[in-house]
Amino acid sequence: MMPLDSLALRHDGRTLEILDQTLLPDQECWVDAGDPRSMVQHIRRLAVRGAPLIGVAAALSLAWLAESGAGSADLRRAAADLRQARPTAVNLMWAMDRMTGVMDTGGGSSALAAEAAAIFAEDVALCEAMARHGLGLFGAPEAVLTHCNSGGLATAGLGTALGVIIAAFRAGRVRHVFVDETRPLLQGARLTAWELARQGVPHTLITDSMAALLLRDGAVQRVLVGADRVARNGDFANKVGTYGLAVQARHHGVPFHPVAPWSTVDLQCPDGRAIPIEQRDGAEVRGFGEWRWAASTTPAFNPAFDVTPVSLVTSLVLDRGVLTRAELEADALGIQN
Amino acid sequence: MMPLDSLALRHDGRTLEILDQTLLPDQECWVDAGDPRSMVQHIRRLAVRGAPLIGVAAALSLAWLAESGAGSADLRRAAADLRQARPTAVNLMWAMDRMTGVMDTGGGSSALAAEAAAIFAEDVALCEAMARHGLGLFGAPEAVLTHCNSGGLATAGLGTALGVIIAAFRAGRVRHVFVDETRPLLQGARLTAWELARQGVPHTLITDSMAALLLRDGAVQRVLVGADRVARNGDFANKVGTYGLAVQARHHGVPFHPVAPWSTVDLQCPDGRAIPIEQRDGAEVRGFGEWRWAASTTPAFNPAFDVTPVSLVTSLVLDRGVLTRAELEADALGIQN
Repeated sequence: MMPLDSLALRHDGRTLEILDQTLLPDQECWVDAGDPRSMVQHIRRLAVRGAPLIGVAAALSLAWLAESGAGSADLRRAAADLRQARPTAVNLMWAMDRMTGVMDTGGGSSALAAEAAAIFAEDVALCEAMARHGLGLFGAPEAVLTHCNSGGLATAGLGTALGVIIAAFRAGRVRHVFVDETRPLLQGARLTAWELARQGVPHTLITDSMAALLLRDGAVQRVLVGADRVARNGDFANKVGTYGLAVQARHHGVPFHPVAPWSTVDLQCPDGRAIPIEQRDGAEVRGFGEWRWAASTTPAFNPAFDVTPVSLVTSLVLDRGVLTRAELEADALGIQN
Repeated sequence: MMPLDSLALRHDGRTLEILDQTLLPDQECWVDAGDPRSMVQHIRRLAVRGAPLIGVAAALSLAWLAESGAGSADLRRAAADLRQARPTAVNLMWAMDRMTGVMDTGGGSSALAAEAAAIFAEDVALCEAMARHGLGLFGAPEAVLTHCNSGGLATAGLGTALGVIIAAFRAGRVRHVFVDETRPLLQGARLTAWELARQGVPHTLITDSMAALLLRDGAVQRVLVGADRVARNGDFANKVGTYGLAVQARHHGVPFHPVAPWSTVDLQCPDGRAIPIEQRDGAEVRGFGEWRWAASTTPAFNPAFDVTPVSLVTSLVLDRGVLTRAELEADALGIQN
């Protein structure tokens, strides 16, 4: 394997490591993640997360196993385990399809390593393409709002929605970023604020419930979010809270844009109703990590994602370009295939 | 003083105690609060909270001081300190006005004790009246959603919005309650869920960002919330997040009702723009209590309240009856005065 390095994933040619995102922002701790058995655990406990990044990480882990001398049966079993580590993000399935496709055509460990490295490199390029197309959204310097984390911690490159935002800041088109803390797992407070501080982008953390207030008061000119799966009609799944934010943006007349690479588009899903939504443990709502504030017996609801209908989307930023709601509604994704 | 007993405030005739709400739900710890100097601290650190309850608690504390033999100058100084314990709660000023009014007309310790006991008893009766009027909102058994805490922990009686909900559950008109956790101070997760469990009301805790999903899916038939101040035109201030919830209710066609006693109506405020909004420390957004998850250097926005315009209100439940949006817009509050 050639050496690879990104904000939350690195490979020195022999060792594959991930930045344990559960310990951010206070600790920057790299942990070994070569063996697919450990990678599955890291994905499940969200130490590595973000739809594009878990696809890249799973591919690199499978390549690591191949380079360590594992046979075909072990590799296929590992690919199946990695595929099932999280159900909603389609990038994971897409990456595993590419790796098993190499095996199907008789590729060995070097071919698998080359494929994983290509997936990594392509993700970096996809981020650059999304940032380039996204830049066209902005006029005068704007204040924007984002939800969850869709930056360098969620991809091998600059990010999807946050990548667009950071690139637009560098180009003088974004002047401030409001960050939803993103309960229950607080990826906004822990990860997005950390990335923006690293990048020198002025930002303000808010609770998710304060976004409406900022939209009403004209403090935010645009909302950008990532996506975990985009259906053929333009409906998309993203971190829970995205749907409510889209409703707020619509009510207040503020443009709302999901940003995703083409690998996030699932043409097998005709619309959002076909996207499976991962239900997680209610303990995540009763507290955070080891900390708990509700009674341990309190029943809680905890869908990890929600689906935003295309009717609330202003435009979708892809690495291939920007599609407006009208284009999405006219089957632009199906036609692009 | 006659013995008095409520969910979070009790007086055995000599000792005045409050239930320390900062320790709920895990510890039910009663602490001495007779001396106004300690009561001011308890109010400031939110050990006793809820607009109606802090008015009652402050009045009882002043009566305790009078019964312990304090002179007029000490009583007036204590009343001034109590009045300033929290700036936003209009009920606190109203209760102190009543107690100093007794002193102005020459009332001694027994008159002050009688006035404080009357404020307590009136608050219980106001809750009962709101519950009675609120019952008329419901048809078939409904699932409802509420934000923050407006129950027995916020009043001397059954509560305002939560009182209506509990009374409607007892009458078979409410079947389930969804509870917004209510970031940043988590009064829903810590207090409302605890009250509902005590009352045997089926409930589910959610993050604030999940409410939109439940409203979209038809899982919630009605939203009820408390109010910290109601302007003459029907605009009202309540815990931050209430405005966004009102927007969601409107978007999804779900009825939305603030519930408040007449003492929460401030006819001096013509509309919501005249209601002052308390800004609190950003540390409350970077974590919770002693726990922190965002970097300590992350800038945060933390308004304690927001204002919901009357245009998003279906009807306002008062102890005097229910006023529809049309009635509120026709100056029904001003006319009632």
